[in-house]
Amino acid sequence: MKILEDRIRKDGVVKAGNVLKVDSFLNHQMDIQLYDEMGKEWKRLFEGVPVTKILTIEASGIGMACIAALHFHVPVVFAKKSQSVNIDGDVYSTKIESFTHKRVYDVIVSKKYLGPEDHILIIDDFLANGKALEGLIRIIEESGAVLEGIGIAIEKGFQAGGKLIREKGIRLESLAIIDSMDEKNGIVFR
Amino acid sequence: MKILEDRIRKDGVVKAGNVLKVDSFLNHQMDIQLYDEMGKEWKRLFEGVPVTKILTIEASGIGMACIAALHFHVPVVFAKKSQSVNIDGDVYSTKIESFTHKRVYDVIVSKKYLGPEDHILIIDDFLANGKALEGLIRIIEESGAVLEGIGIAIEKGFQAGGKLIREKGIRLESLAIIDSMDEKNGIVFR
Repeated sequence: MKILEDRIRKDGVVKAGNVLKVDSFLNHQMDIQLYDEMGKEWKRLFEGVPVTKILTIEASGIGMACIAALHFHVPVVFAKKSQSVNIDGDVYSTKIESFTHKRVYDVIVSKKYLGPEDHILIIDDFLANGKALEGLIRIIEESGAVLEGIGIAIEKGFQAGGKLIREKGIRLESLAIIDSMDEKNGIVFR
Repeated sequence: MKILEDRIRKDGVVKAGNVLKVDSFLNHQMDIQLYDEMGKEWKRLFEGVPVTKILTIEASGIGMACIAALHFHVPVVFAKKSQSVNIDGDVYSTKIESFTHKRVYDVIVSKKYLGPEDHILIIDDFLANGKALEGLIRIIEESGAVLEGIGIAIEKGFQAGGKLIREKGIRLESLAIIDSMDEKNGIVFR
């Protein structure tokens, strides 16, 4: 998606350790007009797919999932990263290792909001090694829901996650795929 | 706001300890059409107010802040609940005590995304004792930005937060204010 690639080139900052900082427009400050264009593009890419619900994970996936949901006319459920006293005990639960935060999270979704009747589109901001997506997929499998596809804003194509997901036969639409990046030579998109 | 009050009456669940569960439509599963109506209503209430940015706090404020931002045509910044390796060191920081999670969070906003040129509307899902809002207000004061107002989905009018905020002379628009609630007699709106 050209406007997202252009924006990453303009405002993204490549840091040591394969870190791409996009917090000026994507995951701390959020450019809602850009989110709206991204939502339209996912709707175009998944046209005709019978999505009944969008699933994302807190915190940085929530905003773009909600704006995308306006285009799909479906509710959003976000997976929570730790048990809250306001969530009933009856939850799907899995552990996810975070590349960004260097720790393991317990991730939960209430059983009330995910079941065999649901056709799920997952939306998230980043795909790198795929650990977060694999966790969400495990939760969807446990619920009996149908995973219709995955929409990602930025895929780090030089890490294994995208390949692993596509090899499972899951439809994955990443709006920008980075094949290489370094502080000196900048970003190369697929 | 009648459609929000009706929805709380229909799908909200009152639990012991002044807990109102609205996770079927507001803060776990999210009804995006309802969010869109809430965004329109905040835009109507704050018509003419020179908002340049919406500030919220992760995680459950993000979705409604983003949908509201589509109506205000401004970006959203969300305060993060703990230091991430992907945030630069130069941040505003404060501590917030959470009623829901019974713990104290460090909350941060990058100095790059909040400064004296900004006119801020805070959006959040709940107002009870006001600890989260007070933390966001401290961050705004430290940044030199102008706080133009606060939009809340559900205010627990029987707790002190709303009164404290209004006594500071801050414009506070809560879409539903609950004056009392209990498991037996249900919910009374102001």
